[in-house]
Amino acid sequence: MKILLLNGPNLNLLGTREPEKYGKTTLTDIEKNITDKGKILGVEIETFQSNHEGEIVDKIQSLKEGYDGLIINAGGYTHTSVAIRDAISSVGIPTVEVHMTNIHAREDFRHTSLISGVTIGQVIGFKEKSYEYALNGLIEYLNK
Amino acid sequence: MKILLLNGPNLNLLGTREPEKYGKTTLTDIEKNITDKGKILGVEIETFQSNHEGEIVDKIQSLKEGYDGLIINAGGYTHTSVAIRDAISSVGIPTVEVHMTNIHAREDFRHTSLISGVTIGQVIGFKEKSYEYALNGLIEYLNK
Amino acid sequence: MKILLLNGPNLNLLGTREPEKYGKTTLTDIEKNITDKGKILGVEIETFQSNHEGEIVDKIQSLKEGYDGLIINAGGYTHTSVAIRDAISSVGIPTVEVHMTNIHAREDFRHTSLISGVTIGQVIGFKEKSYEYALNGLIEYLNK
Amino acid sequence: MKILLLNGPNLNLLGTREPEKYGKTTLTDIEKNITDKGKILGVEIETFQSNHEGEIVDKIQSLKEGYDGLIINAGGYTHTSVAIRDAISSVGIPTVEVHMTNIHAREDFRHTSLISGVTIGQVIGFKEKSYEYALNGLIEYLNK
Amino acid sequence: MKILLLNGPNLNLLGTREPEKYGKTTLTDIEKNITDKGKILGVEIETFQSNHEGEIVDKIQSLKEGYDGLIINAGGYTHTSVAIRDAISSVGIPTVEVHMTNIHAREDFRHTSLISGVTIGQVIGFKEKSYEYALNGLIEYLNK
Amino acid sequence: MKILLLNGPNLNLLGTREPEKYGKTTLTDIEKNITDKGKILGVEIETFQSNHEGEIVDKIQSLKEGYDGLIINAGGYTHTSVAIRDAISSVGIPTVEVHMTNIHAREDFRHTSLISGVTIGQVIGFKEKSYEYALNGLIEYLNK
Amino acid sequence: MKILLLNGPNLNLLGTREPEKYGKTTLTDIEKNITDKGKILGVEIETFQSNHEGEIVDKIQSLKEGYDGLIINAGGYTHTSVAIRDAISSVGIPTVEVHMTNIHAREDFRHTSLISGVTIGQVIGFKEKSYEYALNGLIEYLNK
Amino acid sequence: MKILLLNGPNLNLLGTREPEKYGKTTLTDIEKNITDKGKILGVEIETFQSNHEGEIVDKIQSLKEGYDGLIINAGGYTHTSVAIRDAISSVGIPTVEVHMTNIHAREDFRHTSLISGVTIGQVIGFKEKSYEYALNGLIEYLNK
Amino acid sequence: MKILLLNGPNLNLLGTREPEKYGKTTLTDIEKNITDKGKILGVEIETFQSNHEGEIVDKIQSLKEGYDGLIINAGGYTHTSVAIRDAISSVGIPTVEVHMTNIHAREDFRHTSLISGVTIGQVIGFKEKSYEYALNGLIEYLNK
Amino acid sequence: MKILLLNGPNLNLLGTREPEKYGKTTLTDIEKNITDKGKILGVEIETFQSNHEGEIVDKIQSLKEGYDGLIINAGGYTHTSVAIRDAISSVGIPTVEVHMTNIHAREDFRHTSLISGVTIGQVIGFKEKSYEYALNGLIEYLNK
Amino acid sequence: MKILLLNGPNLNLLGTREPEKYGKTTLTDIEKNITDKGKILGVEIETFQSNHEGEIVDKIQSLKEGYDGLIINAGGYTHTSVAIRDAISSVGIPTVEVHMTNIHAREDFRHTSLISGVTIGQVIGFKEKSYEYALNGLIEYLNK
Amino acid sequence: MKILLLNGPNLNLLGTREPEKYGKTTLTDIEKNITDKGKILGVEIETFQSNHEGEIVDKIQSLKEGYDGLIINAGGYTHTSVAIRDAISSVGIPTVEVHMTNIHAREDFRHTSLISGVTIGQVIGFKEKSYEYALNGLIEYLNK
Repeated sequence: MKILLLNGPNLNLLGTREPEKYGKTTLTDIEKNITDKGKILGVEIETFQSNHEGEIVDKIQSLKEGYDGLIINAGGYTHTSVAIRDAISSVGIPTVEVHMTNIHAREDFRHTSLISGVTIGQVIGFKEKSYEYALNGLIEYLNK
Repeated sequence: MKILLLNGPNLNLLGTREPEKYGKTTLTDIEKNITDKGKILGVEIETFQSNHEGEIVDKIQSLKEGYDGLIINAGGYTHTSVAIRDAISSVGIPTVEVHMTNIHAREDFRHTSLISGVTIGQVIGFKEKSYEYALNGLIEYLNK
Repeated sequence: MKILLLNGPNLNLLGTREPEKYGKTTLTDIEKNITDKGKILGVEIETFQSNHEGEIVDKIQSLKEGYDGLIINAGGYTHTSVAIRDAISSVGIPTVEVHMTNIHAREDFRHTSLISGVTIGQVIGFKEKSYEYALNGLIEYLNK
Repeated sequence: MKILLLNGPNLNLLGTREPEKYGKTTLTDIEKNITDKGKILGVEIETFQSNHEGEIVDKIQSLKEGYDGLIINAGGYTHTSVAIRDAISSVGIPTVEVHMTNIHAREDFRHTSLISGVTIGQVIGFKEKSYEYALNGLIEYLNK
Repeated sequence: MKILLLNGPNLNLLGTREPEKYGKTTLTDIEKNITDKGKILGVEIETFQSNHEGEIVDKIQSLKEGYDGLIINAGGYTHTSVAIRDAISSVGIPTVEVHMTNIHAREDFRHTSLISGVTIGQVIGFKEKSYEYALNGLIEYLNK
Repeated sequence: MKILLLNGPNLNLLGTREPEKYGKTTLTDIEKNITDKGKILGVEIETFQSNHEGEIVDKIQSLKEGYDGLIINAGGYTHTSVAIRDAISSVGIPTVEVHMTNIHAREDFRHTSLISGVTIGQVIGFKEKSYEYALNGLIEYLNK
Repeated sequence: MKILLLNGPNLNLLGTREPEKYGKTTLTDIEKNITDKGKILGVEIETFQSNHEGEIVDKIQSLKEGYDGLIINAGGYTHTSVAIRDAISSVGIPTVEVHMTNIHAREDFRHTSLISGVTIGQVIGFKEKSYEYALNGLIEYLNK
Repeated sequence: MKILLLNGPNLNLLGTREPEKYGKTTLTDIEKNITDKGKILGVEIETFQSNHEGEIVDKIQSLKEGYDGLIINAGGYTHTSVAIRDAISSVGIPTVEVHMTNIHAREDFRHTSLISGVTIGQVIGFKEKSYEYALNGLIEYLNK
Repeated sequence: MKILLLNGPNLNLLGTREPEKYGKTTLTDIEKNITDKGKILGVEIETFQSNHEGEIVDKIQSLKEGYDGLIINAGGYTHTSVAIRDAISSVGIPTVEVHMTNIHAREDFRHTSLISGVTIGQVIGFKEKSYEYALNGLIEYLNK
Repeated sequence: MKILLLNGPNLNLLGTREPEKYGKTTLTDIEKNITDKGKILGVEIETFQSNHEGEIVDKIQSLKEGYDGLIINAGGYTHTSVAIRDAISSVGIPTVEVHMTNIHAREDFRHTSLISGVTIGQVIGFKEKSYEYALNGLIEYLNK
Repeated sequence: MKILLLNGPNLNLLGTREPEKYGKTTLTDIEKNITDKGKILGVEIETFQSNHEGEIVDKIQSLKEGYDGLIINAGGYTHTSVAIRDAISSVGIPTVEVHMTNIHAREDFRHTSLISGVTIGQVIGFKEKSYEYALNGLIEYLNK
Repeated sequence: MKILLLNGPNLNLLGTREPEKYGKTTLTDIEKNITDKGKILGVEIETFQSNHEGEIVDKIQSLKEGYDGLIINAGGYTHTSVAIRDAISSVGIPTVEVHMTNIHAREDFRHTSLISGVTIGQVIGFKEKSYEYALNGLIEYLNK
């Protein structure tokens, strides 16, 4: 079983800036943690981060062969990208949406996700742990 | 550590109707599963279900003493109850919101939650597993 | 054949207040009339009234066994209750919505019903006669 | 007592197309049934169908003399015609609105009726039986 | 100089119904009055009334030759007819919009006119006198 | 009979700027014309112009005694002043609203008038002639 | 003279939680204070609190006999309950709406009250004193 | 194969007015061109134009027998007619929507079509050529 | 302690017009009553009324020195004046908003107040008594 | 004459996935077909596909020299990209918009195109044939 | 060259209140600074401040002769005054809009300016420096 | 001190197309001018332009070290990019937003900026001079 962990714009900055405020966990830490968790569960995790909407679409398209699932935190593109939504639904790969912060307690324009409608589900607000629960949920879904 | 697992209207019907469609997992199964998971993690789980908005408010208020967290699937009240939101925020108890189905892929009036803004986070769409991930997320949060 | 006649909040006040304005027909009169009509048609009518959203949800859930249909005037909950909608659609019982007054000639917030989408149809504006036509319509539907 | 049964655009197609889907009841069947029901109740029924908004307005205006009530299924004009609304309210004739399907379970633009506000009430969703209940309701109203 | 006085749906009922409420002035009276006023001012007035949107469009189109202006009270079509708007603007004839009642003190859906944007101006609220002022305004405009 | 002709903000600029574009008619010309027309009709016309919302409210209040009607072109305050609306309705003086240009063919925010609901009617789009027709309409109304 | 002081959901928590933040005044203190004030003014005060929408409706209905007025702080139901609005207007009892905090300086969904339209007036923002002024206002009204 | 070319309100004016602006192509030219194109392709084209919404509905209904497709430019009715939409969908005939101008570069109320949802597709903005491409598209569709 | 009682547009007309309808209480009566009440409570009351938004802003600004609180009934400016809101918040003076009528039972545009967000609270609907309760509330607040 | 055929995000997947559902026509097939059609008509066709909004903007900018027209299917960017709109309008190249499916029969967010306003026209819903008609329309336009 | 520096409501309070928060720069300082900057650049600066919408309109009208440009910070009237917009556009004087704070990071009702559409441009958010840049921009524009 | 001057999509076309309309100033001219201005003020200016949202996000992220401020004209991304907004706010670099044209006098969708809320301020409408004032404003801010 092979799963892509895809992070969108600005998530590469995690942990490298204002650690006293946002914590010291970097995206590398998160990716390593999920990869390790994957190993234990017998699942290969590939990681990918990009600030480019187009690269994210490219990557999702490449999942057509050899991948079983997608975990995506689309960052700011969550609220504005029909292209990413279409990529997920064209490829038809089981997908879980992740957000580290509770987007419903932030600005109004973050309350709407264009992606949610084509995913299995969402895990929102649990900081880096959101990814872990998403991984569990995705594997559970794939095993059924 | 003690946590309340609270289910709102119509969730008591789970598994008892149209099992070929919705699966055979009953609310009792879910409650037992979470209680067992709690035991392993050294956390006491109390369970409660009601179709009454007022009883749900009463129950949340009772959490002021002796409880550390709340896992809530408010069912249809998710979208219409300011009273439940206020109860959670008055009591100030760390809360995780759960939905078994992907509410963002259903009718428009289910896309908005009045409760999300006063919770830590949400786990949405993973069937009965949503509760498990919520439990993990809540304990993680409480341990910090 | 067994049908529940369910009336929501404030409908218990019918006929007991300002009779010169609203007429002298009480809810008891309506319930008796429908029960009698039912007898003639060989249908058992059970009646129920509550001002509590939760009790209404409980009652609808109890229709899972032994009932064939539901006639509901949800009063003020018509416009605000997702929980009642979900109860009707979870139980999957054929339902007719009734209003005694023409809700479309009243305040704007009465023009929208959260329940209509999961019913067979609506009878609106014919005072106490609305219930009779609803009964006819429901039996007709059940006989097909 | 004399009542007009008025059907709007496309209702003349009833029963003549896709009978396996919409049933075999034609508009002629409905008109005959209501006329017969009227005879039993001692009420003369005139029938009229038109796809033309203007002809419908003309016909409603002609009700000023010799008619006691109107049963109208305005079809697609229900949602777009201020002219028909004005005709009903200018003539001041007691009117019942009918729809064969549950318009609240269809597209959004069918949820609003420009006509409802000037009628006694509505009967919605009971297929051809909607007309019968409307007839009963109108006669009941006229007898008061 | 030749001007068409065009009245839309339901305006033919003026004065013939509830005279104690709406006054006894009929549409014939209004048409005669305007025709007479026209004679004094050396302007030929043709009158036309229809309840049919299509006939109104036809009539406006016929103004291409031999007519200098249009006075229109489009009744209920004021708020719903793009076709009448397009007819006026296609023919390019100077047009004045008239309403006998103050539409801005009535229901919300009467506050918007689809026609106003392609007219010279509007005269609203002066009962039958609205037509007279419209005639004056149109002639004044044509003389410039 | 005594009538106030009230002009709001920026109308004092009429005719004094860009005469090649807006014409050479000044507000003084308009006021003189209406005053003269009034004399012929045996009506005393007082004129008033102000760019100050408060002065306009003061002036309208002063109409409580000795005045029979008001003709108002509230300029930009038409769309934003509840205070002027309240003054007209408090004083209860018959009022006609005037606009020289067709406000419905201009920017969206000019399509709504806060004042229309408390007036007899409106005359819109006939340049300086709008005032004349308004005068006629107001006198006609007062004579009834 | 007899008046009911009715408090809705979560108001029972007043003063018992985070006293350094919300003050130490409990609902019991408020109820005692109003009852005492009532005694001085010769008015009997009954008090009632519930977190249940249905119980609040029941209680308001019971005011039909023997009560002269109602003071209500409907808490979160203020913004979502048509049923409570209908109960007040069905019973026809003079009612004053109270809020301890300035709801207009809080979240958007608290700016709208479904109840205001059927009350005499509102007292908002004066902490526990809001109740006192409401009592004065209601008595004053009843004495007229 | 037989196809109806249906043009709605005001399209009969094409080419006869302001030719220096809109070109000299008349509706007759368009109809002849499409009929000729049809002959080459072995398809019989019938043409029809009306300013009447009702006649258009009548005509569409008549397509039930002997016709294979419909090309429609509904003019102003595009934006306001549920009746035409219903006629197309009741008859179930494959339909292509045509507009000569780019409606998306015009007024806001022209950006929405009530008809688009029940058609195969739209050809917009290519002047008289829009009809030709629509014909090709429809035949292509029918041949599949 | 010194408090300003500020009344906005049209409130100077109170009691002088249609006394049979609005009562005979004049603004002078209200101002005297509040001043007297102030004396008893040891508070100096200054009164001010203006129909001018700018004068109201000027007056509020003058409260920077020597004043302790403001009672304001901004009349029609309540719904349209950002300038008055800004004046209150710039000066930072404790303010209570008053309305004599229940603005929530009137036109839609009266349901929103631009001022409420920068006040302590509101007293609405108690006729002239609204001012008295506002005075009590303000003094209570200032004493804390 | 030289024309660019530009396809946006996810259109590269055409025909390679779920052929039983979407058909077996690939983007390569479409591009070859249009290129061939171009040759016959003496027009050089260049093709370009990208999932990157920025690359699409770059490409459109490159059309300033040597190109005569653009055919664009912007995929998901149709609904969200002001940048692509601005590129088309900055370069000022005649453009035709294409969609293979009928976007008006899909989700609401697909009903609006940010690009339509700066194109000649649209061809929507004719599967791969949409491109052919767009090519014809563009050439026709360029020849005028 | 002569330019008016116009400041609207509440800007006269700058620097005189809460200097530790808003800084000590007064409006006099700003006016002196701009006047001095003007002298260096050979431009005469006149300054004006008013809390009265009407006085601001009067002042703008007076710019018809002898002035070359206008710098305006309309304060709270920015969001509510059509009258000021009309004054600027009637006089046709080149105008720059200034705000000291970033209005887009404040309340929603401050995000819209009724004035922006008739100005050259805006300088927003640079505290007192906003005026300086506006002066530069205006002179630059006038010199072209 | 080091500042990045960042220009978004289509701004690279400045001055190279339709010089008679948009002027001959190229982006290179603007960049050279700002760089020169920077030198005089002792500030190093780096310039960057891209049509790619992702590259703009990448570039803003690179400002974490060695840069003091950002001047951005995000072109069409201004209205659609949450990702760019998040990049600015994640990096926390003082930012000034620039537009050469008055976006408030253009299409509706250009009136809203997703970026404004996280900037110091905006300079809008002064053609190439907008950049100069932005530079001044940013340096002034950084020196404080």
